[in-house]
Amino acid sequence: MAIEKMNVAIVGATGYGGIQLVNLLRNNERYKISFLGGNKSAGLKWNELFPFIKLDNNPTIQEINSSDISEKCDVAILSLPNGISSTITPKLLTKGIKVIDLSADYRYKSLDKWKEIYSLEDSKYKREDYDLCAKAVYGISEINFHSISKADLIACPGCYPTSSLIPLIPFITQGIIENEGIIIDSKSGTSGGGRDPKQNLLFSEASEGIEAYGLIKHRHTSEIEENLSLISGNQIQISFTPHLVPLVRGMLSSIYGRLKDPGLTSSDCKILLENYYRKFSNIKILPEDVLPSTKWAKNTNDIYISLKVDKRNGRIIFISVLDNLLKGQAGQAIQNLNLISGFPMNEGLNFSGFYP
Amino acid sequence: MAIEKMNVAIVGATGYGGIQLVNLLRNNERYKISFLGGNKSAGLKWNELFPFIKLDNNPTIQEINSSDISEKCDVAILSLPNGISSTITPKLLTKGIKVIDLSADYRYKSLDKWKEIYSLEDSKYKREDYDLCAKAVYGISEINFHSISKADLIACPGCYPTSSLIPLIPFITQGIIENEGIIIDSKSGTSGGGRDPKQNLLFSEASEGIEAYGLIKHRHTSEIEENLSLISGNQIQISFTPHLVPLVRGMLSSIYGRLKDPGLTSSDCKILLENYYRKFSNIKILPEDVLPSTKWAKNTNDIYISLKVDKRNGRIIFISVLDNLLKGQAGQAIQNLNLISGFPMNEGLNFSGFYP
Amino acid sequence: MAIEKMNVAIVGATGYGGIQLVNLLRNNERYKISFLGGNKSAGLKWNELFPFIKLDNNPTIQEINSSDISEKCDVAILSLPNGISSTITPKLLTKGIKVIDLSADYRYKSLDKWKEIYSLEDSKYKREDYDLCAKAVYGISEINFHSISKADLIACPGCYPTSSLIPLIPFITQGIIENEGIIIDSKSGTSGGGRDPKQNLLFSEASEGIEAYGLIKHRHTSEIEENLSLISGNQIQISFTPHLVPLVRGMLSSIYGRLKDPGLTSSDCKILLENYYRKFSNIKILPEDVLPSTKWAKNTNDIYISLKVDKRNGRIIFISVLDNLLKGQAGQAIQNLNLISGFPMNEGLNFSGFYP
Amino acid sequence: MAIEKMNVAIVGATGYGGIQLVNLLRNNERYKISFLGGNKSAGLKWNELFPFIKLDNNPTIQEINSSDISEKCDVAILSLPNGISSTITPKLLTKGIKVIDLSADYRYKSLDKWKEIYSLEDSKYKREDYDLCAKAVYGISEINFHSISKADLIACPGCYPTSSLIPLIPFITQGIIENEGIIIDSKSGTSGGGRDPKQNLLFSEASEGIEAYGLIKHRHTSEIEENLSLISGNQIQISFTPHLVPLVRGMLSSIYGRLKDPGLTSSDCKILLENYYRKFSNIKILPEDVLPSTKWAKNTNDIYISLKVDKRNGRIIFISVLDNLLKGQAGQAIQNLNLISGFPMNEGLNFSGFYP
Repeated sequence: MAIEKMNVAIVGATGYGGIQLVNLLRNNERYKISFLGGNKSAGLKWNELFPFIKLDNNPTIQEINSSDISEKCDVAILSLPNGISSTITPKLLTKGIKVIDLSADYRYKSLDKWKEIYSLEDSKYKREDYDLCAKAVYGISEINFHSISKADLIACPGCYPTSSLIPLIPFITQGIIENEGIIIDSKSGTSGGGRDPKQNLLFSEASEGIEAYGLIKHRHTSEIEENLSLISGNQIQISFTPHLVPLVRGMLSSIYGRLKDPGLTSSDCKILLENYYRKFSNIKILPEDVLPSTKWAKNTNDIYISLKVDKRNGRIIFISVLDNLLKGQAGQAIQNLNLISGFPMNEGLNFSGFYP
Repeated sequence: MAIEKMNVAIVGATGYGGIQLVNLLRNNERYKISFLGGNKSAGLKWNELFPFIKLDNNPTIQEINSSDISEKCDVAILSLPNGISSTITPKLLTKGIKVIDLSADYRYKSLDKWKEIYSLEDSKYKREDYDLCAKAVYGISEINFHSISKADLIACPGCYPTSSLIPLIPFITQGIIENEGIIIDSKSGTSGGGRDPKQNLLFSEASEGIEAYGLIKHRHTSEIEENLSLISGNQIQISFTPHLVPLVRGMLSSIYGRLKDPGLTSSDCKILLENYYRKFSNIKILPEDVLPSTKWAKNTNDIYISLKVDKRNGRIIFISVLDNLLKGQAGQAIQNLNLISGFPMNEGLNFSGFYP
Repeated sequence: MAIEKMNVAIVGATGYGGIQLVNLLRNNERYKISFLGGNKSAGLKWNELFPFIKLDNNPTIQEINSSDISEKCDVAILSLPNGISSTITPKLLTKGIKVIDLSADYRYKSLDKWKEIYSLEDSKYKREDYDLCAKAVYGISEINFHSISKADLIACPGCYPTSSLIPLIPFITQGIIENEGIIIDSKSGTSGGGRDPKQNLLFSEASEGIEAYGLIKHRHTSEIEENLSLISGNQIQISFTPHLVPLVRGMLSSIYGRLKDPGLTSSDCKILLENYYRKFSNIKILPEDVLPSTKWAKNTNDIYISLKVDKRNGRIIFISVLDNLLKGQAGQAIQNLNLISGFPMNEGLNFSGFYP
Repeated sequence: MAIEKMNVAIVGATGYGGIQLVNLLRNNERYKISFLGGNKSAGLKWNELFPFIKLDNNPTIQEINSSDISEKCDVAILSLPNGISSTITPKLLTKGIKVIDLSADYRYKSLDKWKEIYSLEDSKYKREDYDLCAKAVYGISEINFHSISKADLIACPGCYPTSSLIPLIPFITQGIIENEGIIIDSKSGTSGGGRDPKQNLLFSEASEGIEAYGLIKHRHTSEIEENLSLISGNQIQISFTPHLVPLVRGMLSSIYGRLKDPGLTSSDCKILLENYYRKFSNIKILPEDVLPSTKWAKNTNDIYISLKVDKRNGRIIFISVLDNLLKGQAGQAIQNLNLISGFPMNEGLNFSGFYP
């Protein structure tokens, strides 16, 4: 008795997010890749582009077209540049196709906020889909699993927000950390910058160098702030600094806060975190003084978290690591796909990477 | 009319610090390398170990011996593991040899503080040289140039403190930043871990990974705190987190503070920093929104600093980059050597690296 | 109806070969890890050493002891330094335990040859097991599958020989390439040098550098020559040059030969290779002018081969890539384990890596 | 009494070759940078593009224009894409400006050969400057120093040919190596691919991967063959395989040949090589069994060569390493600039890099 597979469209299939999705779904018992869409690569055969990730039927990459997608698929995962997603999502939803969007287009409750932050894209795409922004569910799977399972439009978080919010949310929810003075210092591998050639991402430029970018004004600042503020009920302003670091896959966030009750110990805080995420095997809380390398999380959908309290003054530091292309992007999308499809959240995602 | 050169001993010549010193001094018009000392490498010929950094006379590396050093040299630069330096420094000073020490042995005013922080080394070396700790001058060349020029024992700062203190000192000196809540998030290349083989520094382990280490309790925390507190007149507690990043040479520190007067702008703060260091061409203050890569500083003795104020709340962020083996170690030692020798501070150090 | 699993010992579990084996076997339907052995790590708990590759029962690593192994296991995979394997293998075989050896100890038909090439190890271990050398089967799975499936001692080839012999054997077997003048220029990642700390394998040393080593006299030269000569029936002398290249996992061999019949085309030779390996899905012959990166093979048990004939003069060049720790080491061991256990050769090995 | 400096134009100043040239000439006692030309960067200020390689007068990058160059300069160094150089070189020569060209445009004695090999460029630029091809001098400084010093058009060799020809020429000149069967297996860092963004040169793609390219048909094959054949007097066909390796700067060539007299030893051959280049301090012949890393040559204008004879059969292997952007490109251009200007060949080039 064969299970009927869900038909999935991967739109933006030849970027790094798309490649991960193909890899995760190509031999999947639950899902079938029924549409591969791309812009620049439309018309090309998949196996010729990726002879090392072959698909049995060697599909041709298609022009992105909502009619074709809706004919062939139940769900569409969009891995497209910011702004473009909003040109196709409304049509897909109208046709009854569920959408898991990896761009920033539906991450803010308010379209006006998006227009402010993504003003460049707004000037090009002239969006008016206020209602969709309001109803989209923010896709941190372990936080919003109930809403996600009932949603038909999911806005997957950025990699930086994922690595920041998972450690912070339990403490903000319970009011344990002060709202004021949260600092997030994040380090990302180069694959976060995408597969389109850019000079600063050349090996010759990025190797043997570290640099901060988007100081104060990186777009993810507002995304993190919106989510923390919604949970807290108060307006939270953070300092967020992303850094480009010479590795391909991996993200480490060092997160600094102040405990309201400086008497709490590292052990207390670790127990709190463990309890909060006790049902989620892919969130791995480490023993005190065991600090993770991004290498541990590479090629997995896991996030490792370590924390430490400075007994002198009640400051707390979290270190979180994840694979920016999996838990920070495509892996989280599959978690959400599982949820909206009624399957166990982490099905197909419990693999481990090879070390070193 | 030939200038008589100063005779310099490089003790610990085959570590990364020592190799830089040889490179900086081997064709120098002011200095002559008159003694190369090492432990494990004693008895070996330099040019056989380093066929790519040849010395004209192909010297033999010597056992470390204060009599030999004092016979042949005017100054000794010690690039030795913590604790060992204190076994030889008193003898050298007694014989009239000036000492520039790259270890932590004389970085604290109080030997008791050193014994607390470097307890492991203390249990081995049983130091009693309280007086030398008290009189040693902390060797940030651009801050303590007057004292350094008159000193005969200089304790060169660690690479992390150098990258942190140079941006912070002007603001602490003038009371512009609040003492409470300073956070220093630093990223270092692997050469900071030295040349002795260690598993975590293997290419196979360190490549494609980032990790924090020494959370809360890294030894340099106390060194930075002591120096900031001395300047401020108040006890300052910081949060300092070092990270190991996959590059060979380079250090980037992201430093977070709060302005007492939130009305100050990025421009105001930049002008203050420029004025403070206007005499020092190797301290390069960047225009607002120009952020440096460690690659810019690689193979130079320069430090680049960029800063930005978050207008929403008066928080300030500094980004500093330097080459941890030059400005963070051997280059700073040569600046100090120039100062105690009565030469211009940056003589022989105004070279630039090749890019990329 | 549960299948009874084979009990497997992994001896030398904390080196890179051992870690791969644990990863490959820990959730395997056919095999159970019943013994983890190590020298320096004996007495330690696995999960504390490797919190990112957890084992359900968190076993303690054991002293290497043939009695313990034979009590608990059906097969032992030895991932030990050269020479040590020969101290335990005879005892294991006597007790009826099959042995898959990853060292060089049983790779030569003649122990005298081993004593000549591994003279340093021989002076230490004083081997006399001539009979075992004679009966051991050389473990290139796709070549010797019949013998392997009936053997109880398998000598797994080195990574360099694997990457060289798989492309060459079909051509030597059929006498298509001249025996004289074969040149193998190989490039290996640093993990081939193992996990014990060595100075030349430090990130600071190995990064941003390429170097040849063992010019003319690398030990694998004789291993490749023995196997080619056995197949050819004539004595074959090759030139083999290994290079250390700054990547963790991966090996590329560029192999140069001369066709006896210079009229053969690239297409002819490609068809020959495809036919020879048509049953082996993990040997992937690429279309003409499609050249593989080691990155394609990373974290897989596949080998990719491309070839090209220089029409001007009948010279042929092969490019082969593989993951040195999988197809070049632990993956090949599992192929052999499958064969001696009567299972399909590639069971549990048909995974793909993530890209990039 | 001030020396009057030569006025030099750097055309193509913002590519990797151009950046090296600026770095080498900006504080030079003999030369003054009097013109910086670029296409895409024309109109921009140098110091804003390169705040870490500042020029005193902060020049504006100019449109490439032969009149402007000839007004201001005595010599032009062209670091331009293939084909473009031929559009400006004739005009410059007519106006009496000497030209040092880093492209392939004048590397072949016969323009027809160029048209065959660079057919793509030829279809675009329709060259007819046969005479200039015939009179241009091939710029390996240590081989053609006499001709170079009298030339007004110098075609600098590619990096691959430089690293191959310097070791081979002494042996081909003296007929010691057989013409048949020479194999050159070269490995290059990514900076050889230039600074224009290309997907395969992204850090995410090039890191953790090695790949061969241009198998059999790489353009430099013909350049090496032409030069070896000219010296030999016979037509020489080589096998040349370039590989892309994950480092920024550096090139290693492994060169295989057969001695006509198999009785020659490594020592004999080393002496021959030393004698041939005894006047050239930047060509460093290493003792037998000392093998160089590209890291030794990084940021220098030196080439290191090691060789070894396989006593069994008279085969010889050379390993050469150099910095592809200096000795392989800009450094060699400056050597030639010195020669045509009547200065010592290596003036301004005797610097060493920092290690590691």
